[in-house]
Amino acid sequence: MRKNISTRGQDYNQWYQDVIALADLAENSFVRGCMVMKPNGYAIWENIQHELDRRIKETGHKNVYFPLFVPLSSLAKEAEHVAGFAKESAVVTHHRLMSTPQGIEVDPGSKLDEEVIIRPTSEAIMYQTFSKWIQSWRDLPLLVNQWANVVRWELRTKLFLRTTEFLWQEGHTVHATQAEAQEETLKMLEVYRSFAEEFLAMSPVAGQKSEAEKFPGALKTYTIEALMQDGKALQAGTSHNLGDNFSKAFDIKYTDENGTLTYAWQTSWGMSTRIIGGLIMTHSDDRGLVLPPKVAPVQVVIIPIWKDLEDMKGILAFAEEVKQKLEKVGIRAELDSRDYQTPGYKFNEWEKRGTPIRIEIGRIELENKELKAVNRVDFEKKTLSAGDCSNDILEMLKNIQQQLLANAKSNREKNTNSVDSYEEFKTILETKKGFIKAFWCQDPKCEEIIKQETKATTRCLPLETVEESGKCVYCGKSANHRWLFAQSY
Amino acid sequence: MRKNISTRGQDYNQWYQDVIALADLAENSFVRGCMVMKPNGYAIWENIQHELDRRIKETGHKNVYFPLFVPLSSLAKEAEHVAGFAKESAVVTHHRLMSTPQGIEVDPGSKLDEEVIIRPTSEAIMYQTFSKWIQSWRDLPLLVNQWANVVRWELRTKLFLRTTEFLWQEGHTVHATQAEAQEETLKMLEVYRSFAEEFLAMSPVAGQKSEAEKFPGALKTYTIEALMQDGKALQAGTSHNLGDNFSKAFDIKYTDENGTLTYAWQTSWGMSTRIIGGLIMTHSDDRGLVLPPKVAPVQVVIIPIWKDLEDMKGILAFAEEVKQKLEKVGIRAELDSRDYQTPGYKFNEWEKRGTPIRIEIGRIELENKELKAVNRVDFEKKTLSAGDCSNDILEMLKNIQQQLLANAKSNREKNTNSVDSYEEFKTILETKKGFIKAFWCQDPKCEEIIKQETKATTRCLPLETVEESGKCVYCGKSANHRWLFAQSY
Repeated sequence: MRKNISTRGQDYNQWYQDVIALADLAENSFVRGCMVMKPNGYAIWENIQHELDRRIKETGHKNVYFPLFVPLSSLAKEAEHVAGFAKESAVVTHHRLMSTPQGIEVDPGSKLDEEVIIRPTSEAIMYQTFSKWIQSWRDLPLLVNQWANVVRWELRTKLFLRTTEFLWQEGHTVHATQAEAQEETLKMLEVYRSFAEEFLAMSPVAGQKSEAEKFPGALKTYTIEALMQDGKALQAGTSHNLGDNFSKAFDIKYTDENGTLTYAWQTSWGMSTRIIGGLIMTHSDDRGLVLPPKVAPVQVVIIPIWKDLEDMKGILAFAEEVKQKLEKVGIRAELDSRDYQTPGYKFNEWEKRGTPIRIEIGRIELENKELKAVNRVDFEKKTLSAGDCSNDILEMLKNIQQQLLANAKSNREKNTNSVDSYEEFKTILETKKGFIKAFWCQDPKCEEIIKQETKATTRCLPLETVEESGKCVYCGKSANHRWLFAQSY
Repeated sequence: MRKNISTRGQDYNQWYQDVIALADLAENSFVRGCMVMKPNGYAIWENIQHELDRRIKETGHKNVYFPLFVPLSSLAKEAEHVAGFAKESAVVTHHRLMSTPQGIEVDPGSKLDEEVIIRPTSEAIMYQTFSKWIQSWRDLPLLVNQWANVVRWELRTKLFLRTTEFLWQEGHTVHATQAEAQEETLKMLEVYRSFAEEFLAMSPVAGQKSEAEKFPGALKTYTIEALMQDGKALQAGTSHNLGDNFSKAFDIKYTDENGTLTYAWQTSWGMSTRIIGGLIMTHSDDRGLVLPPKVAPVQVVIIPIWKDLEDMKGILAFAEEVKQKLEKVGIRAELDSRDYQTPGYKFNEWEKRGTPIRIEIGRIELENKELKAVNRVDFEKKTLSAGDCSNDILEMLKNIQQQLLANAKSNREKNTNSVDSYEEFKTILETKKGFIKAFWCQDPKCEEIIKQETKATTRCLPLETVEESGKCVYCGKSANHRWLFAQSY
């Protein structure tokens, strides 16, 4: 009773759900808005964590863990911050249940003196502590990161892209000067951009958010924006220069080398399980999930093909030998030796799971000491000699990684249009969508009307944008930069 | 303004707090009962996670992630389970805040239709999903594990040992037969025991819990119990055979190979950040933290000693060379090159942080191309030739690990007493404490009275206990086994 996959052309949203279901990555839980990450999906997150954590540590940050709870009074200290998160806060009000004739109920006698919310992000909880840790210039910079779950009570959820609870890392740093904070903000943005490109084979645009799209409480927010195959953008990681907004709200001061007491400068930055949604939508095709080799939990699956029990023994032994050869050079290989499924069933299943290379080994391969290797992206089939296969497979994996990055980059480039009239702007959004580069006068009113009329928002002012003279695509007033617009997830 | 450490003899509890504070591992947060794990403390947890995760995967388990929330109706499905956790549940009742003239408040209009609690453990949330996943014998065994935070609203908390929120891993498995579930329960108990012994140099006793001390809802609970230096026991990991209690409550059934629909058999097992408290209390001394090399974030610290700037340059370059030599063989080494602290200050600081080996490099060492290496456990000082130092240091680390395990084992053995009279039982608990091996008739009443009168509980029936004929240490009725009693954390 195998379920068929919808195509992207038929129903993009259904295709996305099908890809996830058939690769067995995750499912909606019976808890409103929360998902269950199944072994195949969680293994992708573990690979992301492992590599991103390495890069975060390499840039000098250390991991910490702060509490799950934020007291209301702490949250309220930064006005924009609390306003930004108040409407989606999970509030803990009691600490005990009791048994009643009607069943189990909340014990009204256990009401908390002060309610706490579950962290939607940890500025408010961390910075109250930072103010105690930081006294002197010698305590700076403070460079920490946390891997944690956070909760934002979303009304409309979608696997990976928007869930009530999600997993992420959040970096938080404190600096002596504004310039250092800005340098850190851009450094971490580049960590995200290069991680997405080098590890996930995604090709996002790095840039600065508009005032309206900033993180609540930040001075400046930077983002990496990836373009999905349906022409919608996905914010895949953000880095905030918090200025001294939070240090003033939470009283984070230090004595500088001249003995002067000064407010510190801060940053925060995060990437979440949402990136898995972006990964899926960047690479997958109408046959199912496609994963870049670097992030794929299984990089190579070996499928033995036998006609009878006589065949089976020799073929399995040879397949096991090949597997060990691949593992020796660090390839994550699996041998699918299930005897109650046909090779065809297995081909289909591993294709849907996005495994980059399938190796087929039958009687002929056994006799010739060779193997057939099939590329998941273009289905090219190669015959390789078993003796030297580990190098050939390493090479194939490297090529698939490059192939996927090239596809992502070309998809983004092909679907980025420079537009000078609002008519053309609207036509593109009604048809093929994609990124639109258009002059905008930076008046929030134009941004708001464009959003209402086209559902497109300013995604960012790309870092590499040069100053030009132009006219706002909406109001015609003079404008200095082309911003990147798109509809988004 | 360096704080002195209390000695174990003066005030064991204060000593524990001091060791943590001076090693900068963690601190109480301003959120009731929750702690902040600082970089030095969290790095220990990361090392524990890394190695334990490897062992959990090696035994065939895969990682998953389930939601933070448990609806009341799910929790209530297993009667003993809900009774066990009802009194310490953090309850989420609302999902929105609002701004009022008095400040930020809970929006009464956002009351949830059904309250949810924050998971105290995930049986209730996972098993409702398992019942959907499992249909046939081919879906078994299901072997999953989760790294997560959990919340138990404790009234009296203590860093690492008992905190409202803590981090842990929880394994959950489903099997076709009761025998397989029992085998899994004992297999994971042994994973915990050997991990504690081989990695943490602890020497716990593995055994079975009494009926009164079982996990709420379990058929049998097994535990590893470690003995701390003050003679109190610490439960350091538990493994539960859940029988078919939960599968009946959550309707987890499978069709066996004969087509019969049958309830499945389950286990769960967990180890938490509590183990760090046990690690600290097992090895540390009156000078501060002591860490076994395998779990120490920094295994070797190199402290350069210079008299003037002329000296400094050459010594630092040589120290850096030594550091790289050590890192090349996988040793986690750090060079403390701070120029605003004296070597004496640094010796003291790294001693308190529990770093297993301190290397001193001054002018003489530079001239002779050698180094002084000091063992944190016995303070033995060796002069090593720089050329071959990586092997020597590896050897020293290995020896320190063995030395600490030998100490832990001998401390446990010295402080375990076989006792046949209740008088002697009480005397030991009023004086030196430790583990007491005593016959018990297994009547919960005797267990309860002993607990009330001596604060000692049954820690476990050790796995290696042989059947003997004896009399219950409290009531004198016939008993077949010596149980392990102790006061505990």
